[in-house]
Amino acid sequence: ARPKVGYFYTGKTTLSFISEKIREIKVADRKSVPIVVDEESSIYDAIVTMFLEDVGTIYVTSGGYLSGVVSRKDFLKNAIGGLDLYKTPVGVIMTRMPNIVVTTLGETVLEAANKLIDHEIDSLPVVEEVSIKEGEKAYKVIGRITKTTITRLFVDLGNNE
Amino acid sequence: ARPKVGYFYTGKTTLSFISEKIREIKVADRKSVPIVVDEESSIYDAIVTMFLEDVGTIYVTSGGYLSGVVSRKDFLKNAIGGLDLYKTPVGVIMTRMPNIVVTTLGETVLEAANKLIDHEIDSLPVVEEVSIKEGEKAYKVIGRITKTTITRLFVDLGNNE
Repeated sequence: ARPKVGYFYTGKTTLSFISEKIREIKVADRKSVPIVVDEESSIYDAIVTMFLEDVGTIYVTSGGYLSGVVSRKDFLKNAIGGLDLYKTPVGVIMTRMPNIVVTTLGETVLEAANKLIDHEIDSLPVVEEVSIKEGEKAYKVIGRITKTTITRLFVDLGNNE
Repeated sequence: ARPKVGYFYTGKTTLSFISEKIREIKVADRKSVPIVVDEESSIYDAIVTMFLEDVGTIYVTSGGYLSGVVSRKDFLKNAIGGLDLYKTPVGVIMTRMPNIVVTTLGETVLEAANKLIDHEIDSLPVVEEVSIKEGEKAYKVIGRITKTTITRLFVDLGNNE
């Protein structure tokens, strides 16, 4: 067998450099501002917010804490489904806790990107866990990580920035 | 000044490795299958295709060549806008050539990702230019590159695959 001496600058080595560098990047470094509506908002108002802020997913809160997530896809399904968009609250159509995939400031962007791919979603709320009463936890929404975040990071890495 | 001798293994060097490696990846290596409807299809049928194929953007062709692009956002805007979705052809609401940003097999994924960010779009058709008659060019649609493509690539790089 070939003796394991000296340094081998192979493609494999380059790839581990990349992997190592990527794993240093935290959600806290890259998160952007979350767009949030209250659960009592009408679907119509939530759609308007989505267009004004130009995002693909908005987060829904109840009493200030994360209660749901709603995407363009959810809105489109219901917009053609004959619901009264002005009267129906967004809470009726959202994906509801605990079925929401989240990330935190301390996770790596790679972990967040893995979640986006594994769960086939476009956006993750960045949350902070708080105790609201004995034994009960809730999430405050403090950011978002989306496929746009990842694409922008990829562009920065490729452009060596 | 510090003499420029020997090798400095700094973060900067690692970053150029990453950048170099990223620039080797071509659209041809990463493209996925394009989802296409004809310009005469109704908006409703196009929305159904979008849901069945679970994509965020579909490409529209006329006579087999790229004539437009339509996204969930375009559909949502029109679904709440009171258009007759069953009778109106998708050609009425799509973004039309030549206002479509495209990529080709020979471009790098980094160039494609730059276009996604610069033009604030989610998806690029991968096209092949053909001469249809003297002096007239058209595009055949042969793939797609999206923010999901980039996110998946980022995950592969981070996981060292």
